[in-house]
Amino acid sequence: MRSITIGKILGIKIELHYTFVLLLSIAFFLLLIFDPFHILNYGMLFFILFSSVLLHELFHSLVALLKGLKVEKISLLPIGGIAYTQKMPEKPVDELVIALAGPLFNFAIVIIILLIIHLFPNFGMPPSSIFSLESGMNIALLQYPLFALLWVNFILGIFNLFFPALPLDGGRVVRALLATKFGFVKATQIASNASSLLAIFLGLFGLLLGNLFIVIIAVFIFLGAKAEAQTASIKEVLQNLNFRSIIKKPLYAKPEETIQEIFLKMKRARKEYVLIKKQNNFHYLDLEMMAEIDKRLWKKVKAIRVAKKIVPLYSCKNAALALNTIHEQDVLALPVIVDNRIIGVVEEPELAKLYKFKKIEAA
Amino acid sequence: MRSITIGKILGIKIELHYTFVLLLSIAFFLLLIFDPFHILNYGMLFFILFSSVLLHELFHSLVALLKGLKVEKISLLPIGGIAYTQKMPEKPVDELVIALAGPLFNFAIVIIILLIIHLFPNFGMPPSSIFSLESGMNIALLQYPLFALLWVNFILGIFNLFFPALPLDGGRVVRALLATKFGFVKATQIASNASSLLAIFLGLFGLLLGNLFIVIIAVFIFLGAKAEAQTASIKEVLQNLNFRSIIKKPLYAKPEETIQEIFLKMKRARKEYVLIKKQNNFHYLDLEMMAEIDKRLWKKVKAIRVAKKIVPLYSCKNAALALNTIHEQDVLALPVIVDNRIIGVVEEPELAKLYKFKKIEAA
Repeated sequence: MRSITIGKILGIKIELHYTFVLLLSIAFFLLLIFDPFHILNYGMLFFILFSSVLLHELFHSLVALLKGLKVEKISLLPIGGIAYTQKMPEKPVDELVIALAGPLFNFAIVIIILLIIHLFPNFGMPPSSIFSLESGMNIALLQYPLFALLWVNFILGIFNLFFPALPLDGGRVVRALLATKFGFVKATQIASNASSLLAIFLGLFGLLLGNLFIVIIAVFIFLGAKAEAQTASIKEVLQNLNFRSIIKKPLYAKPEETIQEIFLKMKRARKEYVLIKKQNNFHYLDLEMMAEIDKRLWKKVKAIRVAKKIVPLYSCKNAALALNTIHEQDVLALPVIVDNRIIGVVEEPELAKLYKFKKIEAA
Repeated sequence: MRSITIGKILGIKIELHYTFVLLLSIAFFLLLIFDPFHILNYGMLFFILFSSVLLHELFHSLVALLKGLKVEKISLLPIGGIAYTQKMPEKPVDELVIALAGPLFNFAIVIIILLIIHLFPNFGMPPSSIFSLESGMNIALLQYPLFALLWVNFILGIFNLFFPALPLDGGRVVRALLATKFGFVKATQIASNASSLLAIFLGLFGLLLGNLFIVIIAVFIFLGAKAEAQTASIKEVLQNLNFRSIIKKPLYAKPEETIQEIFLKMKRARKEYVLIKKQNNFHYLDLEMMAEIDKRLWKKVKAIRVAKKIVPLYSCKNAALALNTIHEQDVLALPVIVDNRIIGVVEEPELAKLYKFKKIEAA
């Protein structure tokens, strides 16, 4: 339970990350206790923020789709969203255009609202007396949806585009520009190191202001930049690498076996997972999934009922894709199919070991 | 490089955790830029805090030693210290007395200072006019070391003893009291769950006040409580469990082999580490250690020069102790000696797998 799927748009799964749900619940709880009268105002601000972030990510995805990349999902985190593509854009110019699409959507909204204000000076805007009272955000301003929409999209666009740190859009633009000169992996390394430094400065700035929100964003950027560098390195090292040498013999269970029987089989074989073949489909069951089932039912329940259906690997040429597919399906291993015939399983720790050896060799 | 050893007292290693060093550097950097004139005052406050925490931990350790427990090290973190004993106290009353020793030292300091003030009313204390000006901490107060010592020890004693959450002393007292009724593991589970809840409330309280320091302490308590529960569960499940069934054949290298030769040997065997036997000592070398050495030297340098000496396991009866010894020496595996003869190696992932199977069986 790392995230909740809330729907599908353009064939792209929309997910709420569990930290998003957690922070939303905490915020709701705090508001209910300390400021219940403004709960509708905050709710509206949240809705505007949420839909602006989602549309920002959908615009990235739309351009990625037009560039021929498959977009798998959009994940919404407390500090923004991420659109996941199945692979990175081949050409730096494609990444550049995709990265620009999100902030440009935000700026388009800003321009449209400014036009509306220009044409209808008093429509949906707070009276200027509010601005003279206090600067910055202020509860009274939240009563004006158009103003909130203007403000949220302005901040989203500016911060994402002009803070040049990975994994923000500004960082992606920088990486794309570096990639034209240094290639994708080297560019990612340079951009990642610069981003870590920028994140540290942003964090110090937040500490100085005593602003917790800025500190949290800085931590996310720091970790995100490290993750981008790691992912790029794994992709480069494992790309086009054959993993046939690490394929192992799988442990099978029969669909009619009970969980109890399968557990004993796994214990004897010292395997944390089993595969179950039913008709032409593969199902997967591991210790973690079994631990969630009441032990009193182990002798009755057939394993096939709790196992999950998996998509096997249909080649053994690209180790990077194999690792990616294993992570996506959240399993420890996947069966490998060559010429309509299963030749064995590939396990995540073995792929990780392969990466370590190859990375040292390439250094 | 997770921590820096700064010395030894009573045979106990004193370590600074790297987060401690990091935060100290950041604080020093911020002070140098924004408040260089008070740097000596803050330095003094830091020294008082540092030595009070260290003495607090030494008092825990002293009582633990008197109770016959071996204390391995004291680790200093940004939010306090931890004294690590080789095993948990057997009797709840021992844990109770050890947990009380730290805060009682702080309260003793407070009482001594209050006595000094009583006998010499103006000695080392700020004039009462400072207190009427502002409440709480205030730069001017830092000029009075005796006052700072009083204040730091009062806060340390109160917070550690009366906030009843693991891993703080108050939580240990609660756990010891619960252990007399429920036994150590069940008591730890109850105390850990209650501590997580307390940490969440403390965190919300910090968010409400906008106090970053309180939020950080809450996060440390939350993670610490989870870690205590996990450690207790691992110890219970693996205690007195024989791990002979998971012992594997080790991969050896000769002391005169070069790093290059050993790397190829490891790659062929698909092993991330090798053992090197020299006279009667075992040395250990893994991929991570090799990656730190300039590849141009690989063909010249003998592996024994970069390998580290390790202490093997002298029995195969207690899997909990084996896991602990592996973690302490920061290795992937250790050789097992029975009757002066090596019978193989035990690897960390295999011990973890053993734990998973046994935990499910015991559920």
